[in-house]
Amino acid sequence: MPLNILVTGGAGFVGSHTVLELLNAGHTVYCVDNLCNAYSSGAAKLPESLKRVQEITGGKVTFYDVDIRNRDDLLTVFRKHKVDCVVHFAALKAVGESCRIPLQYYQNNITGTSVLLEVMAEVGVFKFVYSSSATVYGEPRKLPITESHPTGNCTNPYGKSKYFTEEILKDLCESDPRWAVVSLRYFNPVGAHKTGRIGEDPNGEPNNLMPYIAQVAVGRRERLKVFGSDYDTPDGTGVRDYIHIVDLAEGHVHAIDKLSSGSISGFRVYNLGTGRGYSVLEVVAAFSKASEREVKYELVDRRPGDIASSYADVTLAARELGWTAKRGLEEMCQDAWNWQKNNPNGFAG
Amino acid sequence: MPLNILVTGGAGFVGSHTVLELLNAGHTVYCVDNLCNAYSSGAAKLPESLKRVQEITGGKVTFYDVDIRNRDDLLTVFRKHKVDCVVHFAALKAVGESCRIPLQYYQNNITGTSVLLEVMAEVGVFKFVYSSSATVYGEPRKLPITESHPTGNCTNPYGKSKYFTEEILKDLCESDPRWAVVSLRYFNPVGAHKTGRIGEDPNGEPNNLMPYIAQVAVGRRERLKVFGSDYDTPDGTGVRDYIHIVDLAEGHVHAIDKLSSGSISGFRVYNLGTGRGYSVLEVVAAFSKASEREVKYELVDRRPGDIASSYADVTLAARELGWTAKRGLEEMCQDAWNWQKNNPNGFAG
Repeated sequence: MPLNILVTGGAGFVGSHTVLELLNAGHTVYCVDNLCNAYSSGAAKLPESLKRVQEITGGKVTFYDVDIRNRDDLLTVFRKHKVDCVVHFAALKAVGESCRIPLQYYQNNITGTSVLLEVMAEVGVFKFVYSSSATVYGEPRKLPITESHPTGNCTNPYGKSKYFTEEILKDLCESDPRWAVVSLRYFNPVGAHKTGRIGEDPNGEPNNLMPYIAQVAVGRRERLKVFGSDYDTPDGTGVRDYIHIVDLAEGHVHAIDKLSSGSISGFRVYNLGTGRGYSVLEVVAAFSKASEREVKYELVDRRPGDIASSYADVTLAARELGWTAKRGLEEMCQDAWNWQKNNPNGFAG
Repeated sequence: MPLNILVTGGAGFVGSHTVLELLNAGHTVYCVDNLCNAYSSGAAKLPESLKRVQEITGGKVTFYDVDIRNRDDLLTVFRKHKVDCVVHFAALKAVGESCRIPLQYYQNNITGTSVLLEVMAEVGVFKFVYSSSATVYGEPRKLPITESHPTGNCTNPYGKSKYFTEEILKDLCESDPRWAVVSLRYFNPVGAHKTGRIGEDPNGEPNNLMPYIAQVAVGRRERLKVFGSDYDTPDGTGVRDYIHIVDLAEGHVHAIDKLSSGSISGFRVYNLGTGRGYSVLEVVAAFSKASEREVKYELVDRRPGDIASSYADVTLAARELGWTAKRGLEEMCQDAWNWQKNNPNGFAG
């Protein structure tokens, strides 16, 4: 059934790919973004990522340059459209930066979400998909990580903001049975849309592995720093569960289907991953092969707060959402490379 | 050294007693309160509690009817006065209510604190005393509870909001060495000022034991419900570390002395308690004796989320703040009763 979906932070990496899949699925999308992390050329009404989403899909995104912390602006958008469901991406997301400016992270991520939820309740919208992260699990006690793994013990403000927000959502659902909330715990989203027209476009030095590798391959950066080569993993480098961004986006579409079917209520969490871990060096090798470029790297010390291995148990999402990741590491690298080589400087061109 | 101290939530129970002791210690006090939980008569510029604090001390409180979530209003106050240190009480505090309206709790307690801290940083004030709670310890793993006891695992939004705020303060201090923050973890504040002019004045049905007992003793309520009589404690009822409100207020004065001496930096936590636990029935007996009234009670089921026993290890505050609670249970009951019998309907008269 076509729905009216309001997407916050829809101009970002996960947001734009999800908006694309929502349009492909026939939904109407209203997007709210404060553009703090998205490129748009001066004259454009739309951020570049969403302009390209429109080109790819032939669909339309109604865009609002609104900060979710601004209650009145947000209320205006909700009053203008009959919204069935909200997908909430808007958040700051850089771990290192979160340690330098924690208050901004808490204000954006927690206050922002609280304001959004209050406004939703005011206008009578109670279906919510939250953009969470495997970071809420802290250091894994057992692998693969199931959704019943304890949460908390996060080591940085970014991670805490995700964990705190999940707790707020849980309390909210317990306080009022009208809420139906799905929290999607992402493992490591990578890759790009097959067209190479949208992809990950980090500001400044990338925080995540694959954009860094891609920038090395394309010649924007000299070499990759591999943080830690003495972990208890097959080759000593950190192991993560990388998931293709299009698979991840499709997971959101499935979550919305489930929510709109009315078959789930209260607070639900699902891992979005492949269930398979790859080491940093495996990713480097796969990317080199896909790009046919050498990716120079050096082994350096561990970063504080990093963990050895993390990968998901993905059976719950398969069972309850009918969703499984379909794309493997090779395709992740090919698509990331296709995006990078066609957009060596990201959306700014 | 006399300081300029801004107190948020200064009209409340802990706030008003602390303002009183700050004035007694020679400090200048600016008070910010949104009066959501304080009585003031229509014509009065000051909430009744602070009017009486002025009468008792002969001092002056500069009062602002400001909600700390209102950035501009708060900034105006900070720009008007040279503030040396902030003591932050403003928060919602009823456990049961927090389960019913969690978003309001998170907005008041977390967003409110974040806005306050941002404004402080903007005007260059970095000394902060936070009104925390033993609730951050969750279910105690070991008694007495030391400050190094793990925090988290709180079972309700009120408790979580205290725990989350401590984490935010910790992150803030790690991000910027100019901050010096003392978080005071209260055990169970009871009693009232010796004059009987200020005391605890809960709206509606009291959430805490002693005001409930006092309202039974004075005839406002028929009988006390004792939640749980099968705990693993000497008489089966819950054991708590009650602390006289004036002792607690003096703890804040000591914390401010320590902060202003410059001898501590970063994030510090101190338990404020007596180190001694009393059961519900012991408190009932002591209050009956002090009031010379019968306190009817009935034993009912446990409340979900309540714990058997909680009492503080108080050596850290003694060693580092030079502070120890001096008033025992008898005095707590006498002073609570003195307040109750002179103000059977609280400040409203």
